Amino acid sequence: MQNKTVSAGVILIGDELLSGRTQDTNLVTIARWLEPLGVQIGEARIVADDAKIISSAVRRFSDQFDYVFTTGGIGPTHDDITADCIASAFGLGISERADAIDALLERYEVSELNTARRRMARIPDGASLIKNPVSQAPGFQTKNVFTLAGVPSIMRGMLPDIEHRIEGGAKVFSRTVTAAGIGEGDAAAQLAEIEKNHVDVSIGSYPFFNAELRGVNFVARGRDEAVLEAAERALKDMVSHLGG
Amino acid sequence: MQNKTVSAGVILIGDELLSGRTQDTNLVTIARWLEPLGVQIGEARIVADDAKIISSAVRRFSDQFDYVFTTGGIGPTHDDITADCIASAFGLGISERADAIDALLERYEVSELNTARRRMARIPDGASLIKNPVSQAPGFQTKNVFTLAGVPSIMRGMLPDIEHRIEGGAKVFSRTVTAAGIGEGDAAAQLAEIEKNHVDVSIGSYPFFNAELRGVNFVARGRDEAVLEAAERALKDMVSHLGG
Repeated sequence: MQNKTVSAGVILIGDELLSGRTQDTNLVTIARWLEPLGVQIGEARIVADDAKIISSAVRRFSDQFDYVFTTGGIGPTHDDITADCIASAFGLGISERADAIDALLERYEVSELNTARRRMARIPDGASLIKNPVSQAPGFQTKNVFTLAGVPSIMRGMLPDIEHRIEGGAKVFSRTVTAAGIGEGDAAAQLAEIEKNHVDVSIGSYPFFNAELRGVNFVARGRDEAVLEAAERALKDMVSHLGG
Repeated sequence: MQNKTVSAGVILIGDELLSGRTQDTNLVTIARWLEPLGVQIGEARIVADDAKIISSAVRRFSDQFDYVFTTGGIGPTHDDITADCIASAFGLGISERADAIDALLERYEVSELNTARRRMARIPDGASLIKNPVSQAPGFQTKNVFTLAGVPSIMRGMLPDIEHRIEGGAKVFSRTVTAAGIGEGDAAAQLAEIEKNHVDVSIGSYPFFNAELRGVNFVARGRDEAVLEAAERALKDMVSHLGG
């Protein structure tokens, strides 16, 4: 398992993410949480509250990646359609579940459990629940797809109940070498050379600009720490030769 | 043109967006800039520095949407492959262009224009340049696809040179009604009713939680301001009946 590459796809659901109303932060949260587990995100899609598009993205990502995470669309209102989309993606039935109602009863009085709130207990057949310690309405896992809340604090609260369900792979480590006062273009040729000379290390180069400083962060990523260390030394040598 | 729906797809390119290293902000910037032009984003994809995936996303979005925006991957280093991917997506050649070299010469001395930096002047055949007043290396437009920088300040700097190239549609307006102290589940049934009663208005419901307050923002969006105003009144009535 330690040398296996394990991948994930992320589907961020909600019109508000595409209209500019809401800045997504869930993708970065999930990526950083997955990193120590040895899982890398291969692609993310931000999709509207549209049943056909959501179902088709879920189906495709479920085939393509080891794990899939969806965020958003599991609340009580008419635009919360994710559970139905997951069921339809896999041709499963969906119905109100007693264990999900129990979770809601930790928060709501029986008299508050109206039709809308009961919708949050509709779970695709065969899914297992994901505990929500923040607002109780559960997420759920269907095959390799984890369906999480969209509100960032609630989404984060669900991650601990998933961690033990993930079979991670080889962890990816990264080293960053920051070089002030040099340009990307000065380093480009040597950068490609360093990447070529260090097996399975990928090197990214990220310029920064602010009022006081311009420079570049060179980030080497790879699974073998010894090779990565050698790449880091090569990057540092390059930067000092360039006068950075 | 005023009643037409005009759509856009956005492709955010870069390993750093998927590894959790970098929080994207370009999507929200583009969405907010498009709103007054009457263009709505239909889907966004965040993809790795992978030529096949980038090309196929570009091809697909170019067919599917009126306009496509890509960000990232147009710098001088080996991981900057977007220009080649755009060319290959449309079966176009790509070569160094004199007008793009001219743009680079506004920033660099001839002696600084090494092979790496000259790569930033490689433009797909037939594309028109997009001016970059921040760091000079141009973006470009190929058919309905606008290829922009990934660094947010540079990306923003390119937008003014695109605005006149967009034929917008009917502007979408939005009204937000904030209700403190009520839950989404209390409003859900009436919300669906209000949406049904107001033609072409879509209503989203976004709960918020903080130390002092919980509540919901109800956002009505639509193209007809009179209908939208009626929906807003209905939302306010609903909230006051619910005691919010």
